[in-house]
Amino acid sequence: MAFGKLYLLPVPLAENTAIAVLPATHTELINHIRHYVVENEKTARKWLKEMGLKTPQSELEILVYGKHSEKQNLAPYFKAIKDGNDVALMSEAGCPGIADPGAELVAEAHRFGVEVVPLTGPSSILLSLMASGFNGQSFAFHGYLPIDKGARSKRLKELESIAERFSQSQIFIETPFRNNQLLDDILNSAHPQTQLCIACDITAESEFIQTKTLANWKKEKPDLHKRPAIFILYKKS
Amino acid sequence: MAFGKLYLLPVPLAENTAIAVLPATHTELINHIRHYVVENEKTARKWLKEMGLKTPQSELEILVYGKHSEKQNLAPYFKAIKDGNDVALMSEAGCPGIADPGAELVAEAHRFGVEVVPLTGPSSILLSLMASGFNGQSFAFHGYLPIDKGARSKRLKELESIAERFSQSQIFIETPFRNNQLLDDILNSAHPQTQLCIACDITAESEFIQTKTLANWKKEKPDLHKRPAIFILYKKS
Repeated sequence: MAFGKLYLLPVPLAENTAIAVLPATHTELINHIRHYVVENEKTARKWLKEMGLKTPQSELEILVYGKHSEKQNLAPYFKAIKDGNDVALMSEAGCPGIADPGAELVAEAHRFGVEVVPLTGPSSILLSLMASGFNGQSFAFHGYLPIDKGARSKRLKELESIAERFSQSQIFIETPFRNNQLLDDILNSAHPQTQLCIACDITAESEFIQTKTLANWKKEKPDLHKRPAIFILYKKS
Repeated sequence: MAFGKLYLLPVPLAENTAIAVLPATHTELINHIRHYVVENEKTARKWLKEMGLKTPQSELEILVYGKHSEKQNLAPYFKAIKDGNDVALMSEAGCPGIADPGAELVAEAHRFGVEVVPLTGPSSILLSLMASGFNGQSFAFHGYLPIDKGARSKRLKELESIAERFSQSQIFIETPFRNNQLLDDILNSAHPQTQLCIACDITAESEFIQTKTLANWKKEKPDLHKRPAIFILYKKS
């Protein structure tokens, strides 16, 4: 029997935005698929409902993949696919496989020879980069920076130097309750003429995206506490 | 008078896919906006039609931005916005500001204090990375590699070494008519156990996305001639 396909199904980044961030054909797809592998079952069920799921939720088979999937046996996640069923992989927010632990499942799909179909949806990283005005022909995403103050300051100086040497936009994130601290660390570690884009609450009503020099950010700091945010450093060589 | 907003409006990557890659609300937006700044007028008009434009095309004001916009005076592109009109920026394919020359216009918008609104749409870079199974928590996009054979081979070895040292996915592209040559150069320059994802014709009927070791790619090389493709190198440390 032919394998099913592994669809990579993005979900919204903010409440009540599904229609503005997901193509209409995704709704047809979720009403065809019965098998889901998700980062978080509760949020997955909520997003499926918001995306127009008509199938009774009790008829879905939802498996949860953990944060330490590298050490797990991944075979159970592929049983439905090997039985010929299509499966959708969903992250807790945004695009599966990007800044989330789903990539390991996708890697396994390639090893099994399963067809992987990525679907379009909102990525806070990509939307921020588009809106930053920085170089979109060369960029790097680094995830989280070190928490230790000294190591973090050193890392920020390193990223600033890479940005300048290679005209490469440097993208990173922080746990939302530590955003204000990260902003202070950036302002204290990098050069006043280095540019910073702060993109927060992307796609939500309260979306805030601005690019300024650090000197200008110092004059008026936004309150980013507990607001999901992306930070991008850039310095023209 | 309040400025208009600068919307960053993605377009499809392949013919007849608008409904599968763009949220339905983009259609409302394009029927509200009259002013466009685009990379290529002909393709912009074609995509607007495919996206459900109802406004007669003759009523649109379309300005074209060039590949050397850094040296241009950008003020004319902002006249409509300063007069209070919303403007949409469109690339020739995919997301404006990513791997296209639109970023300079977005940077100018920030300098003028214009609100920038990025909209969700298909990015071949992001879709490929999602589907590669490689690290989505750390990745870099490098655009085009050097054309000179020696310089290119050296660069490929460099990217392979960065991938291994930092577990960072290394993404790059080539002009489609040189894809087969690039694939040969990758196979000849990097280690047989290094992994390569080839993602081509993303979102089209003929979409092809596979991740294999170089040793396995050598056994069966796909023909990528004139097919838009993304290449991603990865090597676990």
